[in-house]
Amino acid sequence: MAQQDAQNGGSENAGDVAATVSFSALKPQLFVEAPKANDAVLFYKAAFGAEEISRSLNPKRKAEHEIPLILSAELKIAGSSILVADIADDSTSPVKSGGNGVVLCLKTGDVEGAIAKAISAGAIAEGEVVEGEGACCGGRVGKVKDPYGFVWLICSTVQKCGGDVEA
Amino acid sequence: MAQQDAQNGGSENAGDVAATVSFSALKPQLFVEAPKANDAVLFYKAAFGAEEISRSLNPKRKAEHEIPLILSAELKIAGSSILVADIADDSTSPVKSGGNGVVLCLKTGDVEGAIAKAISAGAIAEGEVVEGEGACCGGRVGKVKDPYGFVWLICSTVQKCGGDVEA
Repeated sequence: MAQQDAQNGGSENAGDVAATVSFSALKPQLFVEAPKANDAVLFYKAAFGAEEISRSLNPKRKAEHEIPLILSAELKIAGSSILVADIADDSTSPVKSGGNGVVLCLKTGDVEGAIAKAISAGAIAEGEVVEGEGACCGGRVGKVKDPYGFVWLICSTVQKCGGDVEA
Repeated sequence: MAQQDAQNGGSENAGDVAATVSFSALKPQLFVEAPKANDAVLFYKAAFGAEEISRSLNPKRKAEHEIPLILSAELKIAGSSILVADIADDSTSPVKSGGNGVVLCLKTGDVEGAIAKAISAGAIAEGEVVEGEGACCGGRVGKVKDPYGFVWLICSTVQKCGGDVEA
């Protein structure tokens, strides 16, 4: 809620779309019904030989959950990364419900520029840019839906989940 | 079916499960309602600076489609690959309907071994292993649904779409 008006940062009209937006990573993020993300991680290790690179936990642990929820666990399979997350029912969670909740997570140094460019190409913004703990390992996160129904999370390159690996 | 001596260490069963199955690539594949895959590719170029690496077309061109359907177009964004495909309404298409049809495409030299291992870990096989033109650039393709609802295409490493790039 704090810094929502960074939206209007430098380029405020849609004509002024930054053609130079660049992206540093693309990772599919799989959202599973809480608190099953930990089980899912174990499954991907057993089924596909996934290697766990990092894991960040939700500091707001719910009484009804025996284990802390996973904000984002990064797994490596065949040299590529996927992210696995519990669906948290709080306002900043980028995905509210399960059911093949695969989104594509794009990291960039210019969240607003990337969103503006996607919108000018035909995407639809969904919600505000927020401090989104649950997406792409944290940082500022915006969401767009492309004309074909796929959801892209546009995330700042700030990395919050490297430190608190916990098994 | 190569060397299956290194069965699984402790977790027995499923008979022939190869603990040594390895994967050479993981790519999300986005299925869009035909014939919009070409539009989707153009959109991903405009919105996210995607670079088209290859494209394979459906040889069975339908009369009602002005442009040939895309079996699989590989795009590179931020160093990672995604595949974009028209949903073909034939029996070998791995996805029959749209609506956030994101599947995870895993390439391996041992399709049956990989499927058996996934199933022994809790996945459910969906259909038979087929010569699936529409998935992962062709080759033999099996499909499993994991316990969390996500669909994984297990594809042989045969690459069919490198040659026929066509814009």
